[in-house]
Amino acid sequence: MKSLGIGLIGTGFMGKCHALAYRSARAVFGDVPEARLEVLCDVPGDKASAFADQFGFARATDDWMDLVADPKVDIVCITTPNKVHKEMALAALEAGKHVHLEKPMALTMEDARILLAAADKTGARTIVGYNYLHNPAIGHARKLIEDGAIGRIVHFRGMVDEDYQADPELAWTWRATKADAGLGTLGDLGCHLISLATALVGPVESLMAETRTVHETRPMGEGSDERRPVENEDIASALLTFENGVHGVISTSRSAWGRKSYIAFEVHGTEGMITFDQERMNELRLYQNRGPVSEQGFKTLLTGPAHPPYGQFVPAAGHQLGFNDLKIIEAHTFLKAIAEGREAVPSFKEALHFEAVIHAIAEAGETGRRVTLK
Amino acid sequence: MKSLGIGLIGTGFMGKCHALAYRSARAVFGDVPEARLEVLCDVPGDKASAFADQFGFARATDDWMDLVADPKVDIVCITTPNKVHKEMALAALEAGKHVHLEKPMALTMEDARILLAAADKTGARTIVGYNYLHNPAIGHARKLIEDGAIGRIVHFRGMVDEDYQADPELAWTWRATKADAGLGTLGDLGCHLISLATALVGPVESLMAETRTVHETRPMGEGSDERRPVENEDIASALLTFENGVHGVISTSRSAWGRKSYIAFEVHGTEGMITFDQERMNELRLYQNRGPVSEQGFKTLLTGPAHPPYGQFVPAAGHQLGFNDLKIIEAHTFLKAIAEGREAVPSFKEALHFEAVIHAIAEAGETGRRVTLK
Amino acid sequence: MKSLGIGLIGTGFMGKCHALAYRSARAVFGDVPEARLEVLCDVPGDKASAFADQFGFARATDDWMDLVADPKVDIVCITTPNKVHKEMALAALEAGKHVHLEKPMALTMEDARILLAAADKTGARTIVGYNYLHNPAIGHARKLIEDGAIGRIVHFRGMVDEDYQADPELAWTWRATKADAGLGTLGDLGCHLISLATALVGPVESLMAETRTVHETRPMGEGSDERRPVENEDIASALLTFENGVHGVISTSRSAWGRKSYIAFEVHGTEGMITFDQERMNELRLYQNRGPVSEQGFKTLLTGPAHPPYGQFVPAAGHQLGFNDLKIIEAHTFLKAIAEGREAVPSFKEALHFEAVIHAIAEAGETGRRVTLK
Amino acid sequence: MKSLGIGLIGTGFMGKCHALAYRSARAVFGDVPEARLEVLCDVPGDKASAFADQFGFARATDDWMDLVADPKVDIVCITTPNKVHKEMALAALEAGKHVHLEKPMALTMEDARILLAAADKTGARTIVGYNYLHNPAIGHARKLIEDGAIGRIVHFRGMVDEDYQADPELAWTWRATKADAGLGTLGDLGCHLISLATALVGPVESLMAETRTVHETRPMGEGSDERRPVENEDIASALLTFENGVHGVISTSRSAWGRKSYIAFEVHGTEGMITFDQERMNELRLYQNRGPVSEQGFKTLLTGPAHPPYGQFVPAAGHQLGFNDLKIIEAHTFLKAIAEGREAVPSFKEALHFEAVIHAIAEAGETGRRVTLK
Repeated sequence: MKSLGIGLIGTGFMGKCHALAYRSARAVFGDVPEARLEVLCDVPGDKASAFADQFGFARATDDWMDLVADPKVDIVCITTPNKVHKEMALAALEAGKHVHLEKPMALTMEDARILLAAADKTGARTIVGYNYLHNPAIGHARKLIEDGAIGRIVHFRGMVDEDYQADPELAWTWRATKADAGLGTLGDLGCHLISLATALVGPVESLMAETRTVHETRPMGEGSDERRPVENEDIASALLTFENGVHGVISTSRSAWGRKSYIAFEVHGTEGMITFDQERMNELRLYQNRGPVSEQGFKTLLTGPAHPPYGQFVPAAGHQLGFNDLKIIEAHTFLKAIAEGREAVPSFKEALHFEAVIHAIAEAGETGRRVTLK
Repeated sequence: MKSLGIGLIGTGFMGKCHALAYRSARAVFGDVPEARLEVLCDVPGDKASAFADQFGFARATDDWMDLVADPKVDIVCITTPNKVHKEMALAALEAGKHVHLEKPMALTMEDARILLAAADKTGARTIVGYNYLHNPAIGHARKLIEDGAIGRIVHFRGMVDEDYQADPELAWTWRATKADAGLGTLGDLGCHLISLATALVGPVESLMAETRTVHETRPMGEGSDERRPVENEDIASALLTFENGVHGVISTSRSAWGRKSYIAFEVHGTEGMITFDQERMNELRLYQNRGPVSEQGFKTLLTGPAHPPYGQFVPAAGHQLGFNDLKIIEAHTFLKAIAEGREAVPSFKEALHFEAVIHAIAEAGETGRRVTLK
Repeated sequence: MKSLGIGLIGTGFMGKCHALAYRSARAVFGDVPEARLEVLCDVPGDKASAFADQFGFARATDDWMDLVADPKVDIVCITTPNKVHKEMALAALEAGKHVHLEKPMALTMEDARILLAAADKTGARTIVGYNYLHNPAIGHARKLIEDGAIGRIVHFRGMVDEDYQADPELAWTWRATKADAGLGTLGDLGCHLISLATALVGPVESLMAETRTVHETRPMGEGSDERRPVENEDIASALLTFENGVHGVISTSRSAWGRKSYIAFEVHGTEGMITFDQERMNELRLYQNRGPVSEQGFKTLLTGPAHPPYGQFVPAAGHQLGFNDLKIIEAHTFLKAIAEGREAVPSFKEALHFEAVIHAIAEAGETGRRVTLK
Repeated sequence: MKSLGIGLIGTGFMGKCHALAYRSARAVFGDVPEARLEVLCDVPGDKASAFADQFGFARATDDWMDLVADPKVDIVCITTPNKVHKEMALAALEAGKHVHLEKPMALTMEDARILLAAADKTGARTIVGYNYLHNPAIGHARKLIEDGAIGRIVHFRGMVDEDYQADPELAWTWRATKADAGLGTLGDLGCHLISLATALVGPVESLMAETRTVHETRPMGEGSDERRPVENEDIASALLTFENGVHGVISTSRSAWGRKSYIAFEVHGTEGMITFDQERMNELRLYQNRGPVSEQGFKTLLTGPAHPPYGQFVPAAGHQLGFNDLKIIEAHTFLKAIAEGREAVPSFKEALHFEAVIHAIAEAGETGRRVTLK
């Protein structure tokens, strides 16, 4: 297998996560090309150099266009703030590179559609960083549903929360602006939940919603008297109608004290229920209306080799995968799709729907009216 | 203290629960009048007699009007099917009796308002069987909120589910009709959640909602080919705006496999969060953004004597109260209010709001429009 | 059915619990004689009178011998401090009364054997207050084991803890003395665990053990400079060999901060495992090595009508029984055994084994040698 | 920093885990030398070659002595079956290599002592694969204890279970022999628990124990009629006395259905309690007897950047580390110690105590007598 060169833009939370993932993907799975860590980009340049040295990239740059143009780079990983996603992804696609883009794709649906159109024009492959989809527990939930383990789906509930904006006195940042951040909790967290809802139940058709900015202003720095408005939502909830008629209800908050990575859902079926919570990401709970009533109950399934691709990491059940392992699976998914000449999932195409839903929620929240997708 | 005579109509789930509660209330608490079990009513009469013997009532009748007229009866407990609540409660009030009415008060808001007006005209006391309000864990949640333990409330989420209508082949009953049962899951379960939401956050101002009948028809008896339509909702979800501006989201299902008595909520505040689940009714979970970050986490409070009136039942923490104990607290609340010549809570007045909310949810679900209460 | 008269000695934690239980047993179950609350005894007499009024006893006395002699009393309930159990129980048996004795039976095995011999001589029935045995969850665990749901038992583990002696500065009381309290945590808590272990696995044959007094002295009152020694154990652990050869390991502490009613066990079998924790007394966890590996996991069974006699209390699963409900089941067990003219379980005979085990643990802890039970 | 060359013997469960760990350690932490993956050894040679290609080793060999002699190799990682640990480790030490040895060090204490003596003679560094020690949750538990968060330790309890030998009909393997495997569950699992107990409470002074072989024979292949004896223990339990006088009780089973990676402990202190379970390895539970009684409870701490070195992996709390991340921390610990010219922990010295304890348990189990260490 011909190895593939990686160019990574960004060295923060997701930047490091991508670097670690591409370092390990082939070692973990064995069935994909080696990922050569070619170029790392960040500003200023000495930061890029320092991280290139740490992460093991062959060279560093402070100019992302330089990275995009590098002939040794096959895959461009974009982990920069949301507002520059579009420009970078377009440039990478135009340069004929495969694009691994962090979510959300863009600040607006218009931009996201431009990205999809650009990808469709090239032969390049794309994948968007909806990493929670790659959890073996989620894969098993899908399999259970497809196998009819809980009968026909009749209801979906989901919540996704963190508390990074829970402190009322946290300083104002660009995250509070529509221009730079776009959506609030919907863009940061909500879209992850939609990716799971869609994977488990199907696409969303229409919705009603309510959105709230809990902390209406924030100080310009700790203890500052000057305060600026928070322009995007801290909390959003929506009543969903999926295309298959199933009713769902979801809620997201970035101001939920105590929630650190809470992505919880329930899938109600005519013969059982599946529940999950990302804060216990190695567990899936399954209820089935089978056998004697006295022995019916929610079963906690600890993921293991019976839930692929867990076994690629550890051959013994219950030993636990971690957050970074999900990105390794994502990187593997992308490398494999490229090697086999087919689309990865979720490509820009699937991601477009996830993001259409969060924008529809924002619109419904503002207008108070039901919004139908497409 | 002068003892009070009890007349109980109904011997089913709630009927027995009332009988046990009034038998024990004074023995548990000591500070209320003895409740004399005077008359038990059910049909047919021999059923009433058998249960009167078992429960310890002095006499039995198959005519509820006889019970209502009995001069030895001070309190009439009504635990019959919803559709006869109104007639019985009105008669009891007219006879000058205090009324302990099971929820929901009536099938329609119009009838509920008639009941409240009737109660207001007499000097009689009323209480409605929103028993979950009496859980010491709920009382402590209220106290924590009032004491500012989680700061200002910014969000509420709640779910209430059971699975007694989850089986698609369960036989059709009167519960499926609007004429006899009124609302579906909203009337059975949803109103309990509203009672808690109101207690913790305050009254609801307006809402949007979606309702679904998951199992559209049911067979006329097990294995029957004849099927009749289910007229009321199996699932309902709503986006609430409380009068104080807080946003809430709730959902209820009577078709949720595995849920047996799931009444779960989260109260999000600016300084912490409280969560609860009735299936673990002796636990309250509290997160506070206090102390070192490394030691912040959700704390599981096991109810005990520090959470009144738990200590009246058991002097040692963590030993667990049960479902029937909540009804003992409710009976005690009523006996005490009567003895002290003041209103009990929740009287018809508070209950009217709980029920206004579920009817508003049903209306919003049907019309697709925001419904404002009052 | 002829009613049975109750004479209750003691009005504390267990005294109130007995009073409530006998008030309700027939109302809950229907198939046993009414329990007439005849005489309540405590000192001083006005305390007895006040509680007799609250609990609903016909009369009060400050002389337990008067109670024992009362011809209207059929059952004597003894809930006094351990050191007077023997004298009272002997007198009651000699007076021809049935005896409901709180655990432990006596301070020493010699005394416990005297009690059993006395009971064997009369036609009277006995029961000892090992109330946790009556939990429907425990009954179901036994049934599962008997039905082979987890194969052959190969291992048992158990823990029983509270924290009422965890505070090092808690004042010294009679509980700290061998003369008045006998054993420490073994007598208060450990014997409950043994009752469950025996019910689930069988009788114990021999054991090794270690015991510790964690807080060697305690102040004579809060803040006092005078301190007295604690003579009995705060913590005890033992390695058990059951008669059927199964190996078990148990541990108990009355100084375990945070444990309020922790009675936890695991039964390991060749085909599965059962676990339980009294702090979540309505849940039983079951693992079976059946079906596809990908769907194996611990199932949480919420007790309900499928787990008798839960349904006598509430006809819907998951609604939760409480601590006091276990004593109602115990009272019912005793009333039924008396009515049917047979032994109740656990009578003095079964209780003798439970207590033999805790005394053997104490002995093994002192001598450092394996102790074999007769 | 001068890079360090890795020679890895073994490509199984632990072999892959080491390969992944050394690939990532510097990228994750940044403050240690790069680990060059130089030589991978396994038999047959083509297996070694295939894995060298997958894992990214520069070359492969089927002769471990060749690897040990390789001048480019600075660190020899030994992940082979236990019985060859001694020979390989001695050779590596003699060749002047640093040794990263999987646990247990050797089959017997005699051999383990020989290894320690050999290590002491060279300037080489050693580390033994007690990976659970490196969990940030465990590090935080130690810190809490050292900071007095739970007062003085008074009791320790621990359990470590898996179910890989729970099936009675699982085929016989070398794991069942004393000659090839040495101890049973004690060597596989028990020693991990001892590593944690020692880290949290201190060294063990003496103990009593009981050991059991639950499945006395096993078939020679699936469905075979021929059966061979299992020579080592499936279950072991012990009563520990730590050097500081604390009493502990532990139990381990490799035949515990449903347990996949259960390493659970409780540390009881005079002011609180800490509990942990490796199957939820990102959670630590803490109870403190502080503040109002009504708000005391077990707090679930989700590990995050406040619990180093979690933040090196993910900058946001609650996102979860996985099993393989613990080995990355272990590799980092070793690389850093080597770079700084000091001992790593746990070196052969600390590991010797862990293993002395499990051998003492085995001896106590066989003789029925208390065994004092050293």
